[in-house]
Amino acid sequence: MSGARRTLLLIGIGAGDPDYLTLQAIKALNRADVFFIQDKGQDKQALRHLRTEICERFIEGGHYRLVPFDYPTRAKEFSDYKANVASWHGEIEAIYARLLRDELQDGQCGAFLIWGDPSLYDSTLRIIEALHRKSEIAFDYEIIPGITAVQALAAQHRIALNAIGEPVHITTGRKLSAQQPLGGESVVVMLDGEQAFTRIDPEVEIFWGAYLGTKEQLLIAGKLGEVADKIASTREAARHSNGWIMDSYLLRRPR
Amino acid sequence: MSGARRTLLLIGIGAGDPDYLTLQAIKALNRADVFFIQDKGQDKQALRHLRTEICERFIEGGHYRLVPFDYPTRAKEFSDYKANVASWHGEIEAIYARLLRDELQDGQCGAFLIWGDPSLYDSTLRIIEALHRKSEIAFDYEIIPGITAVQALAAQHRIALNAIGEPVHITTGRKLSAQQPLGGESVVVMLDGEQAFTRIDPEVEIFWGAYLGTKEQLLIAGKLGEVADKIASTREAARHSNGWIMDSYLLRRPR
Ligand SMILES: C[S@@+](CC[C@H](N)C(=O)[O-])C[C@H]1O[C@@H](n2cnc3c(N)ncnc32)[C@H](O)[C@@H]1O
Ligand SMILES: C[S@@+](CC[C@H](N)C(=O)[O-])C[C@H]1O[C@@H](n2cnc3c(N)ncnc32)[C@H](O)[C@@H]1O
Repeated sequence: MSGARRTLLLIGIGAGDPDYLTLQAIKALNRADVFFIQDKGQDKQALRHLRTEICERFIEGGHYRLVPFDYPTRAKEFSDYKANVASWHGEIEAIYARLLRDELQDGQCGAFLIWGDPSLYDSTLRIIEALHRKSEIAFDYEIIPGITAVQALAAQHRIALNAIGEPVHITTGRKLSAQQPLGGESVVVMLDGEQAFTRIDPEVEIFWGAYLGTKEQLLIAGKLGEVADKIASTREAARHSNGWIMDSYLLRRPR
Repeated sequence: MSGARRTLLLIGIGAGDPDYLTLQAIKALNRADVFFIQDKGQDKQALRHLRTEICERFIEGGHYRLVPFDYPTRAKEFSDYKANVASWHGEIEAIYARLLRDELQDGQCGAFLIWGDPSLYDSTLRIIEALHRKSEIAFDYEIIPGITAVQALAAQHRIALNAIGEPVHITTGRKLSAQQPLGGESVVVMLDGEQAFTRIDPEVEIFWGAYLGTKEQLLIAGKLGEVADKIASTREAARHSNGWIMDSYLLRRPR
């Protein structure tokens, strides 16, 4: 606690099951005066709903305020990926600066509920850090870790992430083409909108999971040569019927 | 629940702070009739203590039994690393088979409390899986994820594990020599008894943490050229005064 400064909490809420919440996250929820709830359009309504449900279920007393905000969408047309992300982050930073200034009073505590862990493929931390560095508004911030989709995937398939003494490589669909599992390494793929696993050696084993930790959870495992088509069609059907999908997978060479 | 079968729960308890426990882990703790508590010798007494403390603090009613068991130590002299690990795992498997048979009755539930997440550099899952495959004793088993040292490290340093859209490589000290951070990749190192970071390019940034999430926590960050010696001496002093050490670090090239 730091007297009159504002505090921001980036609270990892786990990647699916509300029971993934840690005691530390629950304590953090109960410190916050204001929750900033992002609005990402119709398809992610389920996630927004989960966030408000978490507030209702775990905050005692109910003395908190929800502040929804419009989350800008990233430009779909671009030539330079990094520049595109940077300008998008700039827009979000301006919104966060406004929330911090207008929605929190001195000494108050605001929170973002972050899907999974704030440190893994989530931009909030990076943007808050940039805002902090500029120090136009004095504030403190803390990170509360949460169970990631990677861990939900391993737990639900009951597999170790690593082979004995071997590395685990976590990457995106976009980067996968350049990175196939070699030797004993395991490769975990997130953020894959292009079904990059269909380009990988059919001898490689896949452990695939969608909507992990939720009622809609789907799991498929096997050699790519045998299950890749099934995963692609299951994924497409689920995306269509739910309106959105979140899936991850682990690749490794069979021993 | 599966009628008369025995069930084993591999419960991730997080890598340091008892508040890293998830609600799912607490529910699992309360399902177990018996806890198998491993005894790893004097230096890890602190960890054993934490495990029994977790049982006392989070189990309601107190109708459970603690079954301590001697954990075999891995042979220090060996020519083939994988063969050495395999024979050690064989010994542990025989112990687990005995615990399952002699210490659990039909329909009862036994639990192992696993440091961090059961899927990351922990052999329990692999050994239980091997036992399950042999099916001499029928049992079910479940994995409960927990906050890893990797996540504790990122949260305490308030850093993202990945650079924007870039991969995260998790590896061991033993494997690090062959894997330095290249391009935008982040490299997280665990299980490093040989201070492998001292062999890495001094331009690389390190985020080092020991005893993460505990009262003894130590954090050092900076360019290797500037902080490697300080980390090495801090590490050595802490290991000496505490009798043991657990440390991890993230390496990346400055942007
Ligand atoms: C923007 S990243 C956020 C990751 C998150 N911070 C974490 O720690 O898991 C979103 C990606 O995470 C993965 N993901 C998140 N939740 C998931 C779930 N419940 N099931 C499967 N994959 C999930 C998917 O690969 C998705 O594309
Ligand atoms: C056998 S591995 C177990 C990892 C554990 N399953 C997890 O999920 O974090 C032990 C290694 O984890 C890391 N580690 C575990 N707890 C730690 C802590 N509290 N602080 C720093 N490193 C830790 C160290 O690198 C240590 O050598």
